Amino acid sequence: MGTNRIEAFSDGVIAVIITIMVLELKVPRDTTLTSLRSLAPQFLSYVLSFLVVAIMWVNHHHLLHAARHADARLLWSNNNLLFWMSLVPFVTAYMGNNDRDPRAVALYGLVLFSCGSSFSILRAAISRHHRDNEEMVLYHHRTQVKNLFSAALYAASVPLAFVDVRISFFIFAFVALSYFLPERKLAESN
Amino acid sequence: MGTNRIEAFSDGVIAVIITIMVLELKVPRDTTLTSLRSLAPQFLSYVLSFLVVAIMWVNHHHLLHAARHADARLLWSNNNLLFWMSLVPFVTAYMGNNDRDPRAVALYGLVLFSCGSSFSILRAAISRHHRDNEEMVLYHHRTQVKNLFSAALYAASVPLAFVDVRISFFIFAFVALSYFLPERKLAESN
Amino acid sequence: MGTNRIEAFSDGVIAVIITIMVLELKVPRDTTLTSLRSLAPQFLSYVLSFLVVAIMWVNHHHLLHAARHADARLLWSNNNLLFWMSLVPFVTAYMGNNDRDPRAVALYGLVLFSCGSSFSILRAAISRHHRDNEEMVLYHHRTQVKNLFSAALYAASVPLAFVDVRISFFIFAFVALSYFLPERKLAESN
Amino acid sequence: MGTNRIEAFSDGVIAVIITIMVLELKVPRDTTLTSLRSLAPQFLSYVLSFLVVAIMWVNHHHLLHAARHADARLLWSNNNLLFWMSLVPFVTAYMGNNDRDPRAVALYGLVLFSCGSSFSILRAAISRHHRDNEEMVLYHHRTQVKNLFSAALYAASVPLAFVDVRISFFIFAFVALSYFLPERKLAESN
Repeated sequence: MGTNRIEAFSDGVIAVIITIMVLELKVPRDTTLTSLRSLAPQFLSYVLSFLVVAIMWVNHHHLLHAARHADARLLWSNNNLLFWMSLVPFVTAYMGNNDRDPRAVALYGLVLFSCGSSFSILRAAISRHHRDNEEMVLYHHRTQVKNLFSAALYAASVPLAFVDVRISFFIFAFVALSYFLPERKLAESN
Repeated sequence: MGTNRIEAFSDGVIAVIITIMVLELKVPRDTTLTSLRSLAPQFLSYVLSFLVVAIMWVNHHHLLHAARHADARLLWSNNNLLFWMSLVPFVTAYMGNNDRDPRAVALYGLVLFSCGSSFSILRAAISRHHRDNEEMVLYHHRTQVKNLFSAALYAASVPLAFVDVRISFFIFAFVALSYFLPERKLAESN
Repeated sequence: MGTNRIEAFSDGVIAVIITIMVLELKVPRDTTLTSLRSLAPQFLSYVLSFLVVAIMWVNHHHLLHAARHADARLLWSNNNLLFWMSLVPFVTAYMGNNDRDPRAVALYGLVLFSCGSSFSILRAAISRHHRDNEEMVLYHHRTQVKNLFSAALYAASVPLAFVDVRISFFIFAFVALSYFLPERKLAESN
Repeated sequence: MGTNRIEAFSDGVIAVIITIMVLELKVPRDTTLTSLRSLAPQFLSYVLSFLVVAIMWVNHHHLLHAARHADARLLWSNNNLLFWMSLVPFVTAYMGNNDRDPRAVALYGLVLFSCGSSFSILRAAISRHHRDNEEMVLYHHRTQVKNLFSAALYAASVPLAFVDVRISFFIFAFVALSYFLPERKLAESN
């Protein structure tokens, strides 16, 4: 059994996740600047989640590309990841509605932490395919370390939201940029 | 005509089904623990349905893989299955809102029973492609027995919900794990 | 340029159309039989539309399979069809909410008529690819006649809804079965 | 790494975008002609956006077809485009609800301008793949000029909405037809 149908299904699920988030941007009935401005936290929450899900999609793309075959472990590690990703639209809307509330921000961090951990589990499942390949073992090890570091930061964002939600926002932005910026640089040096 | 476009269409439909269910998790306006805790039944209902639909997708994956060509019988058995699966988001939300109400739980069981029966019909359509292959006949027969057994349990969950909804919940969890656990074991022994 | 990306895009759009219709089945807050029974017209409206869209998908499948290349005419005939199909969820909900109102039923008929006509236009665009193939010309001609006949029936359902909505319902069911039953028979004789 | 998974993911996202827009056409509870007629601005807004997104999909189709490989620059130019396109359902509903309000029309123009600019950025990323091909350089240059001209018109529609919203509507229709009509002509001369 090949991995292409898992890719296709994941692409479908991630495409729906990234797009239905916009449905939570409730269209205001009137057009006063006040009502538009009151959408700002929801919009910023949407921008952050779009970036986070897009990064996850790119990494998923790279990761599944390395898989050699679709075994049960891979299949269910992937379903586990998709489950946690499917909660992103919910916590995005929740945080957008309550952007200064530590509980909403902590819940957002908790879901990102679960996504990050699920990525580590999926990577562990796939790296088993390359146990005989020195170079790939090293590659998986290096990216796994970065992955676990991000997951640890997300874990920290949960209690830190109760100190100051801005610390958690900083963590969310920092992790996103730590994945995004190297790719930009890579692109520029191209 | 090949089966790949049926796979692609089914993947698309199942990807949308599994993802729009999260839209029924209504985002609470406030962040009190009470309002969050009141989401618990809806969340558990969502977790169960995600697992159920993911299992169906995996089985669908295996099943269509065995199909040799896309005849009318296969096409419409598949559309029939997708129809019943498309009702899962509705009954998930219904049961999530009324988790102690036998009628809501019975309706959930009824839709799962219909999905299970539809799987049997689809398998019957596909097993016709292998009438000349002893080994495949045996394989289809064995999985068909398990499939019919699950469908029978789902059928039992409908009247049993009126005795005690917890019996039905136990059945839903039992059937899900009876599909999920062997795969875990398979994965571990890998 | 090949036709496979048009197929993939159409599959995606049709998969979303057929699945989001279920979101219009509003989950009742209580579980009285009365509130459940009051969903019946919406549910029947959903069943009809699911069947209609599934038939369209199967026909689309066959039709695009016959296309030799993706020219501008094919591309835009296809987009035109997808546009009218995208209105099916709206008129399904509208008719489900107002199942005895001639205006709602007429609007449903009007959208199906537009879908049927768009199919004829798409078929005309594709049959141009086979002008040099006697057999295919005949095949397209035969299916085109059936297609135009269905479109004419749908057109008739619009004014007839104002005589009695049941005439229109009969037409919708008749056309659906005229596509569905031959395939069943074909499947049985298989 | 190939470009086909980027195409598949983009197709998924665009298919969801073009289809969920219809969910913003709120189904009226009653069937008076007045309530149906009051939907007209939302419907026209939907028709315009469907055409705009369909044109973008066709151009995206052509553009990615020209890409030789999926580098980081291409990946993120594409994600940037998808982000702006994902806002189309929101501004479509917003303009549909407030069709005479300059702010709503200007916001619609702003999102189309962002989509147009993102297309230019994506084209620039892809045209780098053909720096060694005289003919392709010329082709990219010619389409880029048209693309930038449309983006400039969209930019103009933002302030002009405050003069008269009809000027902006004219611009939206003009740009759409400037892409659509040549293809029709091409189709007719086929």
